[in-house]
Amino acid sequence: MNRHRILLAHGGGGSLTQELIQRLFVPAFKMSSLDDAAVLAVDRVRLAFTTDSYVVKPYVFPGGDIGRLAVCGTVNDLAVQGAQPLWLSLSFILEEGLPVADLESIVASIATTASEAGVTIVTGDTKVVERGQCEGLYINTAGIGRVAGRRSVSHAGAKPGDVVLINGPIGEHGVAVMSRRAGIEFQTSVVSDSAPVWPLVKAILDLGAEVHTLRDPTRGGVAAALNDIATASGVGIRLEEKALPIGREVRGACDLLGLDPLTIANEGKLLVICRQADAERVLATMKRQPLGRQAVVIGEVMETPKAMVLLRTTIGGERIVDMPTGEDLPRIC
Amino acid sequence: MNRHRILLAHGGGGSLTQELIQRLFVPAFKMSSLDDAAVLAVDRVRLAFTTDSYVVKPYVFPGGDIGRLAVCGTVNDLAVQGAQPLWLSLSFILEEGLPVADLESIVASIATTASEAGVTIVTGDTKVVERGQCEGLYINTAGIGRVAGRRSVSHAGAKPGDVVLINGPIGEHGVAVMSRRAGIEFQTSVVSDSAPVWPLVKAILDLGAEVHTLRDPTRGGVAAALNDIATASGVGIRLEEKALPIGREVRGACDLLGLDPLTIANEGKLLVICRQADAERVLATMKRQPLGRQAVVIGEVMETPKAMVLLRTTIGGERIVDMPTGEDLPRIC
Repeated sequence: MNRHRILLAHGGGGSLTQELIQRLFVPAFKMSSLDDAAVLAVDRVRLAFTTDSYVVKPYVFPGGDIGRLAVCGTVNDLAVQGAQPLWLSLSFILEEGLPVADLESIVASIATTASEAGVTIVTGDTKVVERGQCEGLYINTAGIGRVAGRRSVSHAGAKPGDVVLINGPIGEHGVAVMSRRAGIEFQTSVVSDSAPVWPLVKAILDLGAEVHTLRDPTRGGVAAALNDIATASGVGIRLEEKALPIGREVRGACDLLGLDPLTIANEGKLLVICRQADAERVLATMKRQPLGRQAVVIGEVMETPKAMVLLRTTIGGERIVDMPTGEDLPRIC
Repeated sequence: MNRHRILLAHGGGGSLTQELIQRLFVPAFKMSSLDDAAVLAVDRVRLAFTTDSYVVKPYVFPGGDIGRLAVCGTVNDLAVQGAQPLWLSLSFILEEGLPVADLESIVASIATTASEAGVTIVTGDTKVVERGQCEGLYINTAGIGRVAGRRSVSHAGAKPGDVVLINGPIGEHGVAVMSRRAGIEFQTSVVSDSAPVWPLVKAILDLGAEVHTLRDPTRGGVAAALNDIATASGVGIRLEEKALPIGREVRGACDLLGLDPLTIANEGKLLVICRQADAERVLATMKRQPLGRQAVVIGEVMETPKAMVLLRTTIGGERIVDMPTGEDLPRIC
């Protein structure tokens, strides 16, 4: 590492997070896959296993709270491996002085979301730290899912000629959280999109179409997710700006804050990369699902330039969509 | 909950933690087992699944660091379910400004301990929070293990007439951490006992003896672990004070701080409760293991008084060993 101290951007899901993983964790733990969940074989059963800690600030925001997020984020990491989420662990780090009523409300939100996602909370842990040591609470969930049939989706699976789809408008989770962030509050009707994507994934996989990559564009947004895929797959990805689904208010908030909607976190979005010949029926299937009604094609996969994401702008130009360094604003999830 | 705000003792592993679990988590998540790990069936395979967050302060202490602890604590929760630890997830919450060298050293410690425990780190996550929001770093690990053969160990399994054994001296982890705690530093040669107990568990299970309960006495120490077992099993437990293995320095530190060694955390200790007829060969087997050389019988299980732990003192009296309310000093693990 060139830097001597941890920066906020090391946790942003962008290039500094990648650097930490590549230089420190991969060699220490001899990690082979960098997908968001590991796939493990137990006899003939294939399981997916994943973990995430949630430190979102504030812990309640329009459209959700840290509890809903802690379920959705983890079950979605399983779903994009083609795995049906089954079991969650739940670990709290609570701040001394946290109102018990707030914890009760978050626990209720976790229970509701787990039920919606079809998962069971099977084990847990609670720690408490002194006042001022965690701003309310942090939550960790780890999840186990069962990989469906002949799964073959992977970050490294995108192929030239493939089509890139998304199930709806981007940037809503990040904008909803920022709108309540102390110091930058603004009025908006945007709410977090946090939702479990497994039903949508299942409908797509059940089609039998040739789906190469599934990904939930969370920290670092669509920009980080697609850069990651372009690098892992050794391909280029071109997005059509006019096809990108971005709500008026999200666009307005991003203009106000000087942010690119492509880098804003989503928590109920699904990027699907599939063979061109299958794109039409994948799109039609997505549109029939509650979480896919606004599904659209947003781009395509190219042979070159490798490991890059380009955006064809509305005025016909082309710009590079960089891997974000970190989050523009930390602690979105 | 009677109390309106979270207290440090809610995280101490004693009666307030139990209250939080019983009144809030059990009904919300419809939890059936309160063992430290869940046992899940996947086809014909039985898996154990557990999670713990580690917030120990300071994050380096004599005999270990938060990284070693984060591996041992979690693999030991699997082992006491009779499960061979296989896979770990690893999630960091890092404080902005943490020296990268400290993180590197903790990562190396995790890798070494994982190798010693025979587990693979398969998936992970990193978040960073602002300066002052987590005192260095917090770590969560979740673990998956495979339940060996015809397992039947459980917190609820202790039976009248059973014998209680432990593999060595108690209180070392807690005393080692406290000796470096800002404000109460003291000189001691005591080091944390943190170690993976699976090899010891395996040797005991391979015996084919009738072992009813295995437990790692961590937060809240032997007092919390045995109270938990006495309650879950509906039995009484009597300890012999003169049989309790407590080192001179641990006893001295506890006298100095006004603490009961029975309530101090251990991270490499194993309580074994087995049928009296099998106690001798279980003890002999433990003594042949590196982690069991100092194994001793410390007590017995009785029909009554139910849900209570008693201590027969060296002078022939008897006192109740209460479930601790919380930790005497928080953030021991």
